Amino acid sequence: MITLSLVGIGSGNPEHLTLEAIRGLENADRILLPRKGDAKTELADLRRDIATNFLKTQPKIVEFDYPVRDAATPEYLDGVNTWHDALAEIWTDLIQAHGGAQTRVALMVWGDPSLYDSTLRIAERVAAKGIEMQTRVVPGITSLQMLTAAHAIPLNSLGAAVQITTGRQLRDHGWPDGVDTLAVMLDGACSFQHVKDVPATIYWGGYVGMPQQILLSGPLADVSDQIIDSRAKARAEHGWIMDIYVLRRS
Amino acid sequence: MITLSLVGIGSGNPEHLTLEAIRGLENADRILLPRKGDAKTELADLRRDIATNFLKTQPKIVEFDYPVRDAATPEYLDGVNTWHDALAEIWTDLIQAHGGAQTRVALMVWGDPSLYDSTLRIAERVAAKGIEMQTRVVPGITSLQMLTAAHAIPLNSLGAAVQITTGRQLRDHGWPDGVDTLAVMLDGACSFQHVKDVPATIYWGGYVGMPQQILLSGPLADVSDQIIDSRAKARAEHGWIMDIYVLRRS
Repeated sequence: MITLSLVGIGSGNPEHLTLEAIRGLENADRILLPRKGDAKTELADLRRDIATNFLKTQPKIVEFDYPVRDAATPEYLDGVNTWHDALAEIWTDLIQAHGGAQTRVALMVWGDPSLYDSTLRIAERVAAKGIEMQTRVVPGITSLQMLTAAHAIPLNSLGAAVQITTGRQLRDHGWPDGVDTLAVMLDGACSFQHVKDVPATIYWGGYVGMPQQILLSGPLADVSDQIIDSRAKARAEHGWIMDIYVLRRS
Repeated sequence: MITLSLVGIGSGNPEHLTLEAIRGLENADRILLPRKGDAKTELADLRRDIATNFLKTQPKIVEFDYPVRDAATPEYLDGVNTWHDALAEIWTDLIQAHGGAQTRVALMVWGDPSLYDSTLRIAERVAAKGIEMQTRVVPGITSLQMLTAAHAIPLNSLGAAVQITTGRQLRDHGWPDGVDTLAVMLDGACSFQHVKDVPATIYWGGYVGMPQQILLSGPLADVSDQIIDSRAKARAEHGWIMDIYVLRRS
């Protein structure tokens, strides 16, 4: 049976790799490497750096082009099925073209394959095509973990619940009832502006875990404009940005 | 200035360590090692194993006794302040007794220091005692990540929010509005029974990431009794259990 390993690689620094992730990659026969999966060359370069410089073995690298899509502001609900279908088609061809029935194929996944990531859904579609395949998941450090680490804050307040949500959910539905801490991901639009009237502290980070990391925090109403401004400047300077934040009701 | 590094070590297997975690421990002058912090010798043994067998350097190990407390069912809101105060007292004494003004002290934290963990709150109390100290956080793989990896499931459904909560919150408040996926931690009482009438799938795991891992999943109403039964048997057999689950509305 073919094994497909989805290996979480953390959030921008090879030091985030776990020993299990390194072993998972080393034990692969083939590593599928997207050339443009993140619309940001730096992220593709990180994957290539890991495959080339961090493994004791040298699995065969099979590069492929992603259908173009903006990873900084993915529109998860628009055309996402078409996109997953197209990727499943590509993976299936690559898995069949490059391996026998026992091949161990690995894919490096930004962050952790469980959190706002498509690879598990794509793998399901590949398996549904009748390929005899087992999917294995190796967790990785998420950008949310890098954010709380960088700010040295707990995610939850004592014994309380936390909601992990998206920029779109925050814009469309406002601050959810019954929860004091929100972690907001996939937000290309500074959606915290939509809840600026809630007394809260924001812990924001751009490029968390990377050399160009930017951190800002403070009362939401006070630092909101500063974050919007810093984010726009950094995006203009680097050509891209990934950011994330935690909101905690005061 | 003294540096206190809170290093996430993952959830029961040294392979969960990140390269950053290993480096953080290797660069420490002292590692504070709780003898009974988890009320489970196996967890204390894992920390000792990491400190002894996984580091290229040999920082001085300073063992200390935790005030006794049941980690399988921590009563976060009962006496938690007293407990944090007591621990802050112990840490302060150890940091002052064993180090100079530049000492780098490290502590190994189960999972990730950001998620339902006390060490950041205790470190804050130590700093409040007037010790010149910088707290650094190194993220680690959580049991929640091990759970979703073991079941090979995404945590969130497509573009949707997820609530991370506790057994107590689920018992006291039921299934929260507006969210289809719940991740339940710190539940010593199989609190999923309180929402058994909600049409949902449960993905349950005991000892996730460890050799004795048990996984069960299925429609909540159908597998609820089986989980309660398996959990009780495993607890009787091993003398302790840590479990966690995801509930997804059908």
